[in-house]
Order: sequence, then structure tokens, then C-alpha cells
Amino acid sequence: MHELTNRYSTKTGQEIIEVDFTEDLIIPSGSNLLIGNGYLGYRGIEANWEATEFSGCIVSDTYDKADGKWRELVNAPNGLYFNIIVDGQPLAKFPDVTSENESLRRSLDLRSGLYNSIRKFNLNDTNFILETNRFASLEQLELILANYKIIADTDVRIKIQAGIDKKCWDLNGKHLEDFKEFNQDKLLSILATTVESNINLSVSSLLNIANNSKEKIELINEDNKYLLEFDLSLEANQPVELEQYMAVTHSNQRNNPLQDSKEIVKEAKESGFKLLFENQLENWNKIWNKWGVKIGGSVKDQALINFNLYHNRIATPAYSERLPIGARGLSCQAYQGAAFWDQEIFNLPVYLYTEPEIAKNILKYRYHTLPGARKKAEDLGYKGAFYAWISGKTGEELCPDFFFEDVLTGRKIRNHFNDWQIHVSPDIAYTVWHYYQATGDIDFIIDYGSEIIFEIARFLYSRAHFNKNKKEFELIRLLGPDEYHENVDNNVFTLYQSKYALDKALKIYKIMERDYPDRLAVLKEKIELKDEEVANWKEMAALIKKPEPDPETGLIEQHDGYFQLEDTTPEVLEERLQDPGEYWGWPNGVAHHTQVIKQADLIQLFWLQPELFSDRVKEKNLDYYLPRTEHGSSLSPSAYAIEEARQGRTEKARERLIHSASIDLENTNKAVSGGTFIGGIHTAACGATWQVLTFGFAGLHFIEDEKNGIYPEIKAAFKPEIPAAWDYYQFNLKLSNQDLTIRVETDTIIMTASENNNEEINLKVSEEFVNIAPGITRKIRR
Amino acid sequence: MHELTNRYSTKTGQEIIEVDFTEDLIIPSGSNLLIGNGYLGYRGIEANWEATEFSGCIVSDTYDKADGKWRELVNAPNGLYFNIIVDGQPLAKFPDVTSENESLRRSLDLRSGLYNSIRKFNLNDTNFILETNRFASLEQLELILANYKIIADTDVRIKIQAGIDKKCWDLNGKHLEDFKEFNQDKLLSILATTVESNINLSVSSLLNIANNSKEKIELINEDNKYLLEFDLSLEANQPVELEQYMAVTHSNQRNNPLQDSKEIVKEAKESGFKLLFENQLENWNKIWNKWGVKIGGSVKDQALINFNLYHNRIATPAYSERLPIGARGLSCQAYQGAAFWDQEIFNLPVYLYTEPEIAKNILKYRYHTLPGARKKAEDLGYKGAFYAWISGKTGEELCPDFFFEDVLTGRKIRNHFNDWQIHVSPDIAYTVWHYYQATGDIDFIIDYGSEIIFEIARFLYSRAHFNKNKKEFELIRLLGPDEYHENVDNNVFTLYQSKYALDKALKIYKIMERDYPDRLAVLKEKIELKDEEVANWKEMAALIKKPEPDPETGLIEQHDGYFQLEDTTPEVLEERLQDPGEYWGWPNGVAHHTQVIKQADLIQLFWLQPELFSDRVKEKNLDYYLPRTEHGSSLSPSAYAIEEARQGRTEKARERLIHSASIDLENTNKAVSGGTFIGGIHTAACGATWQVLTFGFAGLHFIEDEKNGIYPEIKAAFKPEIPAAWDYYQFNLKLSNQDLTIRVETDTIIMTASENNNEEINLKVSEEFVNIAPGITRKIRR
Ligand SMILES: [Ca+2]
Ligand SMILES: [Ca+2]
Repeated sequence: MHELTNRYSTKTGQEIIEVDFTEDLIIPSGSNLLIGNGYLGYRGIEANWEATEFSGCIVSDTYDKADGKWRELVNAPNGLYFNIIVDGQPLAKFPDVTSENESLRRSLDLRSGLYNSIRKFNLNDTNFILETNRFASLEQLELILANYKIIADTDVRIKIQAGIDKKCWDLNGKHLEDFKEFNQDKLLSILATTVESNINLSVSSLLNIANNSKEKIELINEDNKYLLEFDLSLEANQPVELEQYMAVTHSNQRNNPLQDSKEIVKEAKESGFKLLFENQLENWNKIWNKWGVKIGGSVKDQALINFNLYHNRIATPAYSERLPIGARGLSCQAYQGAAFWDQEIFNLPVYLYTEPEIAKNILKYRYHTLPGARKKAEDLGYKGAFYAWISGKTGEELCPDFFFEDVLTGRKIRNHFNDWQIHVSPDIAYTVWHYYQATGDIDFIIDYGSEIIFEIARFLYSRAHFNKNKKEFELIRLLGPDEYHENVDNNVFTLYQSKYALDKALKIYKIMERDYPDRLAVLKEKIELKDEEVANWKEMAALIKKPEPDPETGLIEQHDGYFQLEDTTPEVLEERLQDPGEYWGWPNGVAHHTQVIKQADLIQLFWLQPELFSDRVKEKNLDYYLPRTEHGSSLSPSAYAIEEARQGRTEKARERLIHSASIDLENTNKAVSGGTFIGGIHTAACGATWQVLTFGFAGLHFIEDEKNGIYPEIKAAFKPEIPAAWDYYQFNLKLSNQDLTIRVETDTIIMTASENNNEEINLKVSEEFVNIAPGITRKIRR
Repeated sequence: MHELTNRYSTKTGQEIIEVDFTEDLIIPSGSNLLIGNGYLGYRGIEANWEATEFSGCIVSDTYDKADGKWRELVNAPNGLYFNIIVDGQPLAKFPDVTSENESLRRSLDLRSGLYNSIRKFNLNDTNFILETNRFASLEQLELILANYKIIADTDVRIKIQAGIDKKCWDLNGKHLEDFKEFNQDKLLSILATTVESNINLSVSSLLNIANNSKEKIELINEDNKYLLEFDLSLEANQPVELEQYMAVTHSNQRNNPLQDSKEIVKEAKESGFKLLFENQLENWNKIWNKWGVKIGGSVKDQALINFNLYHNRIATPAYSERLPIGARGLSCQAYQGAAFWDQEIFNLPVYLYTEPEIAKNILKYRYHTLPGARKKAEDLGYKGAFYAWISGKTGEELCPDFFFEDVLTGRKIRNHFNDWQIHVSPDIAYTVWHYYQATGDIDFIIDYGSEIIFEIARFLYSRAHFNKNKKEFELIRLLGPDEYHENVDNNVFTLYQSKYALDKALKIYKIMERDYPDRLAVLKEKIELKDEEVANWKEMAALIKKPEPDPETGLIEQHDGYFQLEDTTPEVLEERLQDPGEYWGWPNGVAHHTQVIKQADLIQLFWLQPELFSDRVKEKNLDYYLPRTEHGSSLSPSAYAIEEARQGRTEKARERLIHSASIDLENTNKAVSGGTFIGGIHTAACGATWQVLTFGFAGLHFIEDEKNGIYPEIKAAFKPEIPAAWDYYQFNLKLSNQDLTIRVETDTIIMTASENNNEEINLKVSEEFVNIAPGITRKIRR
């Protein structure tokens, strides 16, 4: 057994095992043992747990605003409620851990998304074992299946209650009303409506108890539960298996959710758990084969990476082109099931280079939410597309003006995440272009990307100010990634990301002008784009402020005036706190007037645009900014890990990768702050894990060369490093539809092109250029 | 007797009488009964009071930083210390107000700057009356004289202790060290040095006790006092008079301060109090004849106006062209004896139009402090002259980054008065031009004003941002006059004042180009001004954002986004306070996120540039902004009074004038806040009083007409109103060196040109054009 953290371990690197269940694990394991499929997320609960145990089945595309303020996803009634009653006494929710006869052992199989628990308990002097297996189907996204195996050590008659628990654990208001219940031949269903968005949501639930008792079945509809009670006779030491099926459907995806939820459950019953789980294994296997990473020599590291890849995947609503990846995925309602810049910069890259069709869907979401982004720009007096800081289904800004609170005074603080943290727009442009880099899919650019990027360029031009004195475009009043410094000018990250966006807008315009003139004409008419505007972008791209390192020190100032702030460290600031819950940043937090930053900012820019600065400059700045970084955001460690890995600080990078990948398993971040639940899976950190491997250790980056015309020639390049603890690591890439496996060993880099490829793959590895024909494996000494 | 406030009254309108002395009047009357002459300010104290009673003799041009942080003026040792001892028992500092035999009655004669007190007391069963008269000489600025008359109701031997009290009431550190004492034939002197600025300061003190005892004189040098003790025999009911002279000199003004302070005192003794006071009366009379205002029908209003004119005058270091007018004048050390924008906008106008030579001196101060303003601009990355928010002798910024404190958390707040409240620079340009308007003194413009204004234009261009999208120059991240809204864009006041400054820079450039080409060449070389820069100013003047009223409502938005803030009133905000001492503004005060403003802002612009907007617009905006104004600054009521008077809301305006003119006499503002003394005379409100009369009630404004060439033809214009309570009001103006008296009666306006004039005066009165030859009086019906 390999310890991952002090509460979780792994055996083979493919599963997460909860060590010694105690009640304080309810919240973290609810998230960590989550099953899901991008349509829904079902928290890691035991079958008889309820809202008080943070039961949750968060369903995508069900945004609703119940309290008049916070729009969030609906937590569906739990159609997998299941409990055992012996002689009138129901199974307790938690084991009596002081008793030898009681225990709860839980795990999550990452390779199949299977939640497993073995509950030992004693009721009425009988010892029982209840084993639960549960998975959220990848084949039928609205379906979750559970399988129960019960063994008693004596002959005993028990009752089973199974069905729908209508109580929902809601963060901000009760979302469902007008409940209607249906019982059709033991298939229980409910239909309810969301209070504000009027979505009809249906849950169906069926217990398959065919093999044993049929005698007495009772319908229970009380205490917010809609259940059937079955009698069941157990023979000593003879296991009985039961299956339970739950379907969640809603009217944003279905015309007849009630009917359909019933059908789904009925079909599941017909196929049965066993067959469907075989299916599930196969489906997950396909996925792992695409982006699975292999680590030789460390089961622990393997498990951590798998854990993060798994959670990034089940958070992604890959099934739709109109839905965002939530900052907490579907693990809870926190962060409104909405996208931040995390989506493009942290979650998407693994898809860009392994499952580009998913990346495309998520980028199309940004296309479909252009109206929201345009509205935000217009509301604030700008043009083009100013993407929301917190983006739900429509793309309108969900981030309120006031959200943090000064814990010392109780006063609400006007934070400016919504209007000053503008880098999300160029970050989206950046990722749209990287999609093209990865796929060569020019059609997507013409059909969708061009409009996104043009509107972003337009926004940037309208947001910028030209300093006539310095003859530079400046970006004034920003928050960069480092959120402790609001209201800064010329944040370097934002400037260079904006320049990137403008450059790509001009490149795409040039391509369309020559090769897609009709499409360009249509688009220009649609968005009323004038030639003059394109000239403006060109001018701005040329004249946007481009901060340079100090020639002597090599340091780059994160934003204007940063070096004049008090130079201190997070440790010193800790001591200045009057209350541990103080927000450190704007407007008068302990960090705001100092050089202490919340998270990677300049270093985040190095991550995204490694070609901008010399190795010496990147080294100097890493050394400068690292001790001044609090890592107060889960986004931070991965950025530093990538930079450390690239700079060959391999062991430090591995430590930081482990730290980043363990954020949720460590569970040191508070789940509830100031009465607000902020727990759940940190999906950005999950997505970053793959990037630490590829962009960090393997030094993956892309070289664009335009010498042969207006289409850049794009080449993937590597400069691999490997930590001492690993024998090898291996990952897959899909580049322009050609599959490639990279295996980095201590002395060797082994590159294998799939035999299904139809083109040679051209790479640059360290200083060497390598061409690999389909089916060929190349080895290079490191 | 006419009550002014509940603690002060007047008899004739020419004096301020303290009613019923009680100890809580020590601080306010210390300021209100201040005597001074622009070189020094001697607080209204009794002769035996000390630092514990806030004794003060604040001396101009003695800046020193004793605590390493706050630079302020020195409070000189008190050379007019005087006390009576009877049978070993000294006169108590305060009367026993419960006793019939004891009282203290104090007053200040505004027409001569004479402090008078009559102290009745009983010591050793004898009843005494001690009358003190004291004035700060206008003839010899370093001299203060006191005259004491003592009467006892029985024969009694007393002792007099007189000399120098070396204890100083200091706000921020002890400024004087290395005390040396000298006793030369009963003339006591001290010489000391300021701790940081190394100024030698000398105080000499002499008691003239010639007429009576000479027998026994003892030198006392203890308890921080350096005194002589005299024996004195009093005969019952026979008054004895004594005179005391104090001189304060220092090495910034004198080569030999010690020698000179002695000489000054000796000369004073030779002339004697009586003769010198006759002189004083004559000197003050000349001044009052220049800017004296007469109010018929309200002794109270007359007294209030005189009180304010008096304090504005004694705050003004008219003797120098290198010193600022302090925000608290010389009434105490608060506000660092330094100039704010108050100086040009509030204090100077009365001089511009009555004693322009004083205005010239103070504007030359801005010329001499150009290096400080240039340094500030450079330090912050701008060009030209960014005048200090708090400007001492060198013009370098005295305003620290952190000064307010969050009273709820004890945390220092980074306010941005120093770097964002930029309007002080264009305000100075505005007043430089108004000096020219008032005097026609083109030489001043060529010699000094041009450099000031060009450097301000240069600064504004470098501070502005060009919004290429809107094709406008914007001014970003400002504080306007309303200091509760830091960090705003395009504050309308700042924009239009900046445009004014740019327009005048261009006008002056044009004049110099044609008529003073050699001087222009020299200046351009000196300040390295390029033709391109002048073209830039022209572009900026044309394209600077010029917010317009909403065509429907007539409202002008104080700054971008102001109308989107919470719309509430100061009264509502009061209730939100958790502590009465909270600062309402930046960064998270109760007003900052609302439309409640600290003080006149847009209305302040109407005051300065009444020609910008139509009467309707000004009315609508007055109605809008008034109920949203807290008047949290003493600068605010006068601005509203002027606008109300101009709009014919005459009775409201008079009420507000009385309010503004009573700010110090009402003494409702806290003198000490958070341990910091912020008392003293609000000199800006004092200076504003004259403007409410002239710019407000009389509707004085200036019309510039350029049709006859590049020099504008400037005409004073009036549109007089008069409150019902007044029979008339009268004031003087000096316009292009021609003297004019305006008397506004209920039905008539009477204009008299001095017979010493050498030109016709051309005016516009309401819609009529009036020409008045020297010595002629013209009447017009209102
Ligand atoms: Ca639920
Ligand atoms: Ca003193």
C-alpha cells in the first residue's frame, strides 16, 4: 500500500483508497471519491447518506437562481437512496469505529470511475457486510448504476428502503419546486421544476430485487423521501445482490424528461449492472489510452496523476458545445458551475493534444457565449468581446460587484474581478490559436475562432489607452493572475497575452483575406468589422507596451510600480493578520501594499509563452518571485512546477507537482469559509497536472515558422528532464491528427508514431530535428 | 451685542468677543483670537499659559522634520511669558468661574489685530485686574508687543516673572535643540537650532518695567523657562502699566538672528507700545481699505466676513515670494504649514483683485517650486510639473503614502492624494491666468507664468491617455475635489480645468511667439521645449474628453460611472458607521461605493468656469448634487453658496455663507482626531468668504474676447443679487490697476471709479455695458 496523504492511499496507482473512515472525511471524500461523466457528478457518499452528509448529484446545464443572487447548478434529488432496516432499526449512517464489528472502507477506481465501499455493521446482533459498487455511465450520461451485495452471518429478515431522497443539499436557495411523484410498477420517478429558470427535471429510480422477496412492498412518501420498502430474507453467509438504477434528465436536454428518465432506467435494468460495467470499462479504457500517463518507479506519483486526470475529465461537459467547465467541476455547487480563465489555461490543454474534439466543443462554448461577452463589453463602455470572469451558460457576467467581506469590519468589499481582470479574453484567444497549433483545423478557425479572436482584439483595442507621450498602448487598471494586486497598470502577463491575441487576430485576418475572402466578407458584415479596425489592431500589436527585463538584474516588474512596494514575504504577512480569515488583497489586505503575490503571475506568462525571454531572465525571475508567492490559489504551484521543470530544477519540480496534485487529497484548504462552501475539486489544478508532465518535464513547446507563407509551420519541440525517482514517464500526443507516444527514460527518449498515422511527424528534440514515419519508433539519447 | 455663535459675539462687527471663558475654549480661541502678520502667528493665549494650553508662535519659513516623517513649521519659544506672583502664590492659569471676583473676558479687534483680555482675580485676599493688549506688528514682522495694566484693590507687593517659556507645543517631534541663553541688561534671548534643517532661531524678550521697582531682579532658568523676576509695589486702585516685547528671528531670513532679535526688541522699547500701535492701526487701515467689505443691515454678517478676511490675511506670507499659504495658516503646526490647491483657488482670489502684488508673490512661490514639481513628475514617470498635493518650501511632495487609518482595524490606509489628485497643477495654471486677467501684467506671464503653465501643460499631456477608440484624451485614475471617490476616471472638474490650462498654455505661447520671440527662445531652450510638444498640447486641448450634460435630464456625471453608484444620502450613511471616527472614503468607507460626495466637485467647476454650462444645466446639477454632499470639507459650503447666489437663491446662499464663515467660530469640527491635532483656522474657508460676496452675490465673472488680436480683451461682468437681510454690501476691486468700488443696494448698483485711476473702466452689469471714467460714480437700477 502506498500512502498518498495521511487520509488516502493507493495500491496499484489506479485507485484512491480512503484510509480509516471518520466523519471529518465526509466533505473531502464526497469530492475526492466523486463519480461522474461531464453531464453529472455524483458525490462519494454512502447509500443511506442525505443532505446532511452533503449528498449531491450536480447536473450540468441546469443553471438556476433561487436566492435572487447566485446562479448555480441544480443538485438533483438522490435516486440512489438505499437503506437497510433490521427489526425496525435502520442502518446507522456511520460505522461505530470503536466496535470491532463495524467499519467502512471506501475507494475509487480511477480506471473505470467505480466507487466501491465495504460497510461492516452489526444490527440486532447480526453481523452484516454491505458492499456497494457505483458508477456514472459514460455510455448513457444520464444514468448512474449501483450494485449492492449483502451478507449476514445468520439467517435474518431485513427490510430494504430504496428510491428517491428529495432533500437536496443546496448552497444558495432551494432550486426545485412543484414536485410530482410517480410509481409505475415499482419504478419511482419524480418531476420538479427549477424556481427561476423553469427547467423540468426528472429523476427515476429502480431497485432490481427480482431474485428474492416479492411478498410485501410498501410505498413510503414522507420526510422528503419517496421510497419503496421491500422485505428480504437473507440466509447466513449467502450473499444477496441487488441493483439500483438512477436516471436524471431535464428539459434543457430532453423534450420529455419524465418519460425519458423512466426509459433509461428500464433499459439499464434490461442490460444489468454487469454488462453495463463491462461497457464502462471499455469506454474508460479508450479514454485512458488517449491521454493516459505512465510513471515508472513511483506508484504514488502515478496515482496522483491519474487522480487529477480523472477529475479533469469528469468535470468536462464534453457532450455539449454550449457548456463550460466549472471551477469545481460537478463536484458541488460552489463557484456556480461556471468557467473562469482556468478553463482555457488549465483544463483544456490536455484535450488540445489528446482529444481535440473535446477542446473544440469547449471552445465552441466560447463562440456561443459571444453575445454575453459583447454585452459585458458594451455595458462597461467597451467594444468587442469582454468575456465574463465567471461565465455560465449565456456568458453573461456572473461575478457580482461585492463578494469578499472584510472579516474585521463585516463590510462587503467591492472587488473588481469582474471589470479589471481582463486577461480572460486574451487567454481565450491564446487557446483558440493553440487549438489550431495542435490540430491544423483551419475550418474551426474560419467557422468559429476568427469571430472569437476578432471580437477579442476589438475589445482589447477599446480597453487600451494610448500614452501619446511614450507612444505606447497601455493597459490600465488591471488585475493580473496575482489577485492580491488589483488596480495595477501594465501587468506584464496581461500585456503579452494581449499582444499574442492581437498578433493572432492579424494572422487569421491575413489568411482569410487571401484564402477565404468570401467567408471574411460575410464575417465582416456580420460583426460590422471595418478595415480601419484591423489597421488599429496592427498598430496596437506593434505599439503595445512590452516590458523588458532590467538589463542588469534581469528582473521584470510584474506591473508598474511593483518593485516600489514593500519587499517582504508571506511568512511575515502571516504575523500581521488580526484574523486568520482575512483576505490578503484589495483594498487594504496585508499583501496589497507589498510584493507578496497570491499566485504565479509573471511565471504564469513564462508557462504560456516560454519563447519571450531568455533562460537567464527566466531563472532570475523565478528566484525573485518564488519566495514572494503565497500560493494562495490552487493555480499557483503548477505554474512554478512547470518553470522549475523547464529550468532543470527537476527534483523541486517533482515536489511541487506532488503538492499541486495533492491539493484535494491533502484537504488542507478550507471547505467552508465565512459560511460559504468553497470545497469541491480544484479542477484547474487537475488539468495542470498533465501540463507539468508535458510542458514542464518534457519541455514541450511549439515553434511557429512563417517562412513558407502565411500559414505558420508548426513544430512540437521537447527538452525532456526526468526526476530521479522515476524510471520513466510516458504520455501521448495527437498532433495534426497524428498519434505519438513519448517515453522519457533516464538516458533515452523514445518516440513512437502510431501505425495508423498517415503522415510523418516532425519534431525537435533538444537541438535535434526528428522525423518519424507511421509505425516507427525512434530513440534518442538524452 | 450680537451673537455670532454660542461662544462668540460682536459689538460693532469689527471684533470677536469670547463669551464666558471656560477651559474648552482654550483650543478654539487659541486659533480664533490668533494675532499674526504672515510671518508669524501667535495664538490667543493668556500671558501665563504654556504648552499645555497650546501656546504657539508659529514661524513661517522654519520647516523642520523632527520625527523623521512629518515636516512642519517650528513653534517658537514663547517670549511673551508673563506671570504675577503674590506672596509666593502664582496667578492661576484659569479664572475660578464660580467666584464673583474672578473672570476672563477676551476679544480680538479685527481692524488692528489686537488681542485684548481682562482678567479679574483674587490672590491673597486682594482683587486684581490684569488687562493684556497684544499685537503682531505689521511694520516689523518679527515683533510682537504686549501691554499689561495691573490694578489691585489694596496696596500690595507682587512679583512679576517675565521672559521666555522654552517649552513648545509640538505636533510631531521636538524641533529645537542646542539652546543657548543670553541675558544682556535684562534683555533675555535664546538661540536654538532646528534638529533636521539646522535653522538657527532666536527669541528675545524684554519687559519694560521702568516706572516702578528696580530693587530686586532675579534670573530664573529652570523648568524650561528663562525668566526675570521683578518686585513690584502696587498702590490701591492705581494702575501700573508694563510693556513686553518679543522678537523671533531665524537664519533663513537673517544672517545674525540673535543680534537682530535683540535689536528689534530694543528698538521696540525705544518707540514704545503706544506709538507702534498707532502705526499698526494705520497699516491695517490701509489693508482694510483695499479689500474691506461693508455689509449694511447685519452687524453679525459684517463681523463674520471681517473675521474671515482677517484670518486669510494673517495666514498669508505676503512678505516673501518663496513661501506658501498653509492650510491652517500660522495658527498651528497642523497640515505642515504647507499649501494645497486651497492656496490658488480659495486664498488667492481676494488678492488677485485687491492686492495683486501679494497674489504675485504667492504665484512666484509656485515658480520657485517648479523644481519640486518637476521632481515629483519625474519620480512618477511623467513630464513637466506635477505640483505637490502638500507643498512646503521646496515644492517637493510632503503628502505621505499612508496617512489615514482604518479606525476599525487600526490599519494604515494607502490614500492616493499625492499621486492621483492631479488637479492642483491645472488649478495653479488657472490662477496664473486669472492674475493676468486681473492685472494685465504680461511681464509676470513672460517672466514666470509662461514657464509654470508650459510645464503644467507638459505634465498634463504626459499624464493623459488617449483612447484611440473614442478618439479622446482621458484622465484616468483621479481624485477630484470630492475626495471620497479615489481612483475615478475622467472627473469632470479635472478635465475642464486641464483643458483650461492647455488653452492658456497655447494662448501664452502664441503671444510670446509673436511679441516675445527672444524670450520664448530662451525659455524653450531652458526647459527644452520642442515645437512638437506644443502641437501635442493643441491636439489634447481639442480632443480632451469634454463631458456634456445629459440632454434630457441636464445632469453631468461627476466622473465615469458615478451615476451607477448607490444613490443615497449622507444621513443614511451616518447610520452605517460602526465608529463615528471612520473615514468615509477610499478604500472601503461608507461613501466610497455611493453617490455621496465629501464636497463640491462639479459645483466647484461651476464656480471656476461659470461660462461652461447653461443656467438650466447648472440649476439641475445644483439640485442633484446638493443633497448628496456631506460637506465633510470646509471647502464645500462656500462652493454651494456661490452657486446658489449666482442662481438667485439668495437667502439660501446667505445662510450657507454664514455657515461657511462660521466654521471656526462654531468649532464643531474636531480639533484632535485619532491623536492628531487638526484644529486651527480653516484658511480656505476664510479666503472663500470674499468670493461668495463677489463671485456669488455680485455675480462677478470675466469675459474674454479675442476678436481684436491675440491678447484677449477682458471685461469684468456682474449680475448682482442681495439677500433681504442686507441694506447693501460694498467691496473694492483693482482691475488692471484701476480702483473700483461696487456697492449693491436693494434696487441700485453704485459703481465708483477712484479719482486716481488713469483709465476708463469698462464693465458689463447684467446685460448693460458701462464705462466709468476716473472719479466718476455710476448708478444702475437692478
Ligand atoms: Ca441530491
Ligand atoms: Ca511656543
